[in-house]
Amino acid sequence: MRRALAAAMRDAVRSGRLAPGTRLPSSRQLAADLGLARNTVADAYGDLVAEGWLTARRGSGTLVADRTITPPVSVRSSAQPPGEPCYDLIPGNPDLTAFPPAAWLRATRRALAAAPDDAFGYGDPRGRPELRAALADHLARARGVYTSPEHILICAGISHGLQILSKVLAGRGARNVAVESYGPDRHRGLRAAAGLETLSLPLDTHGTYPVPPDGTDTVLLTPAHQFPVGTTLQRDRRTAVVDWARRTGRLVLEDDYDGEFRFDRQSVGALQALDPGCVVYLGTASKTLAPGLRLAWMALPPTLAEEAVAAKGQIDSCEVFSQLTMADFSTSGAYDRHVRAARRRYRDRRDALVTALAQHAPKVRVIGAAAGLHTVLGLPPGTEQRVLQSATRQGLKVASLSRYRRERSLKAMADAIVVGYGVPSDAAWPQALSALVRILS
Amino acid sequence: MRRALAAAMRDAVRSGRLAPGTRLPSSRQLAADLGLARNTVADAYGDLVAEGWLTARRGSGTLVADRTITPPVSVRSSAQPPGEPCYDLIPGNPDLTAFPPAAWLRATRRALAAAPDDAFGYGDPRGRPELRAALADHLARARGVYTSPEHILICAGISHGLQILSKVLAGRGARNVAVESYGPDRHRGLRAAAGLETLSLPLDTHGTYPVPPDGTDTVLLTPAHQFPVGTTLQRDRRTAVVDWARRTGRLVLEDDYDGEFRFDRQSVGALQALDPGCVVYLGTASKTLAPGLRLAWMALPPTLAEEAVAAKGQIDSCEVFSQLTMADFSTSGAYDRHVRAARRRYRDRRDALVTALAQHAPKVRVIGAAAGLHTVLGLPPGTEQRVLQSATRQGLKVASLSRYRRERSLKAMADAIVVGYGVPSDAAWPQALSALVRILS
Repeated sequence: MRRALAAAMRDAVRSGRLAPGTRLPSSRQLAADLGLARNTVADAYGDLVAEGWLTARRGSGTLVADRTITPPVSVRSSAQPPGEPCYDLIPGNPDLTAFPPAAWLRATRRALAAAPDDAFGYGDPRGRPELRAALADHLARARGVYTSPEHILICAGISHGLQILSKVLAGRGARNVAVESYGPDRHRGLRAAAGLETLSLPLDTHGTYPVPPDGTDTVLLTPAHQFPVGTTLQRDRRTAVVDWARRTGRLVLEDDYDGEFRFDRQSVGALQALDPGCVVYLGTASKTLAPGLRLAWMALPPTLAEEAVAAKGQIDSCEVFSQLTMADFSTSGAYDRHVRAARRRYRDRRDALVTALAQHAPKVRVIGAAAGLHTVLGLPPGTEQRVLQSATRQGLKVASLSRYRRERSLKAMADAIVVGYGVPSDAAWPQALSALVRILS
Repeated sequence: MRRALAAAMRDAVRSGRLAPGTRLPSSRQLAADLGLARNTVADAYGDLVAEGWLTARRGSGTLVADRTITPPVSVRSSAQPPGEPCYDLIPGNPDLTAFPPAAWLRATRRALAAAPDDAFGYGDPRGRPELRAALADHLARARGVYTSPEHILICAGISHGLQILSKVLAGRGARNVAVESYGPDRHRGLRAAAGLETLSLPLDTHGTYPVPPDGTDTVLLTPAHQFPVGTTLQRDRRTAVVDWARRTGRLVLEDDYDGEFRFDRQSVGALQALDPGCVVYLGTASKTLAPGLRLAWMALPPTLAEEAVAAKGQIDSCEVFSQLTMADFSTSGAYDRHVRAARRRYRDRRDALVTALAQHAPKVRVIGAAAGLHTVLGLPPGTEQRVLQSATRQGLKVASLSRYRRERSLKAMADAIVVGYGVPSDAAWPQALSALVRILS
């Protein structure tokens, strides 16, 4: 009652129903009026006086404090844009309906039961040791990454990893990072915030040419599956860029965002293994499980480890429960099983796409390796605008390749769209594919 | 086999057993030597050529690529400092053995089943709507906070919140933040990184004097329970600092880190309610549940909301599963039940401490409100060093109050130690208390 009374009076003061300076009835009077114990009212008055809503002065009773309250006014509307398309083929998310909640919960239960009590406290900024150990093992097996748990740093997504690395690089005096001429744009801001300029690496028919001009401090690449073009970095270029880094004492950042998904042959192993001393490997659970987990990892050159940990902060900023769960998920074999099933799912979708296009839209070229959650489709010259317009009419969300073009000064690729076949659910995929084939044929 | 063979050869190259330039046997030869299918060996060679470990040239066979690999060398030792004390009374963590894993897992199961599929994707930077709605309700009931879900921003701990706010303030041209003269030191770096100077507010026997000198841009306070001194901000000072903010158009940041734990009377409500337009409220699950969840929240003045969201980033950097679980935990009533049980636990511990000191160490003064997870003990003048030394000998980890003194130019408080009674488990607390009383009596 005391709490309810105090809340009601707070509301009355806030809304102006009880004006500043208003004298309130005595606690005895109000208690009688409301049929409450006098102490209840006196306590509520006491709470409100302590909080500054009321003032109590000997001889003048209890008054509403002399202040005006402006209630907050909403300044942003959260209205949804109308006419959402039916099928989202913008690359980014995996099929979120395929997240395995039951297996994940079993892993959480086991992980919470096994965790030492201090696991729930403020943690080591490197991340939980259980997860770093599981990842060192998993990355060696699955991606050929050469590292140890103490050189792994857990981060809340690859963006977070790149933010940490930008801080470290700027702290070491770097002034720029060279990136592929096509790619996501949202990381540019992270680099700019750290004071790093973004340079651009040219792209040709063999993919990115990764050896940068003199004066470049760092190179950021997606070697296994260029995003979004889809090429795999050629072997000569792999060794050339690592040699450049070694020769100049610079770093290569390897963004291996979807390296688990290669369909035609065994994945090309991580570039990092060619020289773990000058390549930073970045991987993530965003494409294999779900972006909402905000779980990613870096395998750091040993000489960089301490600086990167310090740049992350004094305590672990990443949620611990999902780290513990992921560690169990990985060591129990559930992660391997899940990735294998996901690989089959996305391979089948890509195969269906390639077959349907060969049959119904033979002029459309499928560009890039048989890998990942998206592909680039090369269109007959001059048809891109028409294709994008009819996609909109068909309720199909697709992006033009030019949307990912980072550097206007470099040669643009021909008419092409990027198709993310990872996003629809298994149930929605056949219709999404039909709609796509319809606008392309 | 192909994968195992490739891994073995990678290892041999990396370790130098296969020197650069070494010519490998033909795939047919090696297959015969190893008793493998020729294709297996050829495929493994192919993988290693694609990765840059080997080179294959027509006429000269397969060679180990001409490069040297330096294996990573550990540069940091992870040895534990020897002689850990038995009882940790440094404030910070709650009793982590009291985390309720079964109830939390039930909430996770319900939350995952109820969540829409897109909940697992890249999220709204403000945080999950389910959690923001649950918190708007909870904070109004439990702390008198006046807000709405659209003005709540989820963050990964109060430090993360302060980091976001520092960015926003610096972006608005602020140059400094005034803080209480005693407090945790680790936030100073966040402010410095954003280019903000840290000023200090004087402390007297009535707590902090919160109205800052002219030229101050922002005030950061712990009004409900000053950390670490333990005083509650006096009612005149509550209204005075809000009036200052309103008059000058500045902001007050209210760090309500342990506001749920008040033992003697109903909690003093949030300062924020006095004027939601110029006070930012910050709360956290770190003291009520576990710091490892990295869950905290801000109730923002509407005019600040968009800038704060932008400063957090383009996508939600906070893990989604714990947000969904916390939302269910709160709306199902499990959070209230858990907080009530925790409040009883910590109140009983504080009562036992006060009683034991009155009986065995009557010269020691318990300073601050009956609240929170820690208290300050005022010692007889000149005895602090002796107390700290005998604590170390007894295996008791306690901090001197002076360790939290942020501003050397302001008057120091007398000899005192800070005792966190939240940290030990229920099983360990009686012995920890005995050891503490022993060194103080």
